[in-house]
Amino acid sequence: MSNLRTDGFLGGRLQIAQPLRGYRAGADAVMLAAACPAKPGQSVLELGCGAGVAILSLGWRVPDLRLTGLEKQADYADLARQNAAANGIPCDVVTGDIAAPPPRMKAESFDHLIANPPYFRDGTAAPDPGRAQARQEQTPLPVWVDAGLRRLRPGGVLTLIQRADRLDVLIASLHDRAGDICVLPIAARTGKEAGRVIVTARKAARGPLRLLAPFIMHEMPSHQGDKEDLTPAATAVLREGQPITGLFAKVS
Amino acid sequence: MSNLRTDGFLGGRLQIAQPLRGYRAGADAVMLAAACPAKPGQSVLELGCGAGVAILSLGWRVPDLRLTGLEKQADYADLARQNAAANGIPCDVVTGDIAAPPPRMKAESFDHLIANPPYFRDGTAAPDPGRAQARQEQTPLPVWVDAGLRRLRPGGVLTLIQRADRLDVLIASLHDRAGDICVLPIAARTGKEAGRVIVTARKAARGPLRLLAPFIMHEMPSHQGDKEDLTPAATAVLREGQPITGLFAKVS
Repeated sequence: MSNLRTDGFLGGRLQIAQPLRGYRAGADAVMLAAACPAKPGQSVLELGCGAGVAILSLGWRVPDLRLTGLEKQADYADLARQNAAANGIPCDVVTGDIAAPPPRMKAESFDHLIANPPYFRDGTAAPDPGRAQARQEQTPLPVWVDAGLRRLRPGGVLTLIQRADRLDVLIASLHDRAGDICVLPIAARTGKEAGRVIVTARKAARGPLRLLAPFIMHEMPSHQGDKEDLTPAATAVLREGQPITGLFAKVS
Repeated sequence: MSNLRTDGFLGGRLQIAQPLRGYRAGADAVMLAAACPAKPGQSVLELGCGAGVAILSLGWRVPDLRLTGLEKQADYADLARQNAAANGIPCDVVTGDIAAPPPRMKAESFDHLIANPPYFRDGTAAPDPGRAQARQEQTPLPVWVDAGLRRLRPGGVLTLIQRADRLDVLIASLHDRAGDICVLPIAARTGKEAGRVIVTARKAARGPLRLLAPFIMHEMPSHQGDKEDLTPAATAVLREGQPITGLFAKVS
């Protein structure tokens, strides 16, 4: 893959090479990793790992995880392998489709599943085909949820980040197949509606849903040009690699 | 019905007789009414109207509505009729079961549907049978949603208040049958998870879901004994009969 640029994540603790013009992971991938309640010794699979920002952020934060990434696009999978090596975080990156995973992955069941499924259902094609594939929904969202649940052991935890306006699809896909659903609205500013949601759920569980107080990203009531105004909570997650707490407080 | 007490709602603007020991409507019914975007001239049906707090609060706020309440328990239906008359708010209260409504109601389709379905799935029986029936779920929540959607015209709006931990059931029941879903989390205090949700949805619509910033009920970070510490927003709704705005801001 050519035209790469290396970006620092977690305040520079993680260095990730990403295509300059293709799909570039950002804050959402780090938020996803921060929300996954994986503990040392557990196994984690990321569906659609791209260049590896989410799975490697998680590997940076929690020691002794067995990390696996599944990525359909071979060049992104290669990049994820290189990024894992460059950051000294062991991660098995498998090239394959989430809807038809390779046989060796089908045989495995994981403690945790993380995914940041594409945000755009269709829409105009992005100029770069890699970016287009990563951002647009060739695989419908319910298929992501289904694939995720299939790869989890019973009691395993699914953690997803997605546009807030698709919460209905997420919940309808999880309903009756997972419980202990926890919804964390992510809002740019206090008083604004959520732009993203992080949803966690436990496979085959039956506990009630929890709708948490929103996670607020920015301090100022409106956009302040180039000035960074992350809240202390967002700074802790994005710049210091801290976990998002509270998602599993009552059910773990 | 004996052992009644008359309670003031909307800062005393609405006087509602309720059984002293039976099921007693409170803030949730007023919040429900405040969230319904009915406009003068439109028709509104409440499923399970009890003594009429929600439907009459709505009738107090919005002039020239055609109000109908459906209530299974005959004594509560009588009470709702008396409360409507006492407050000078015309309301047709029909005695009947939401799962098997009377024929004349089946023939009608409404612009708006409101409901505050029972909060408890089973649990210990309340000492008063009327209260038990109103609070416990003899009719499962998906049946309420289904009954509500059936009574709406296409494009009609459903407004529900429910425990936040049942948002998954609400959304799964609405999915593919209603759109423009709007979720308003209601939290006791800033930073707390939602205790209730108000959900609005438009029958047969396909617009995306919106997850709004939470509606906060109390100012103080913790319970302050008997001292009332409603937020200005909660005061406006509960004491002044103001609507909750923003639920349909983008889709109306």
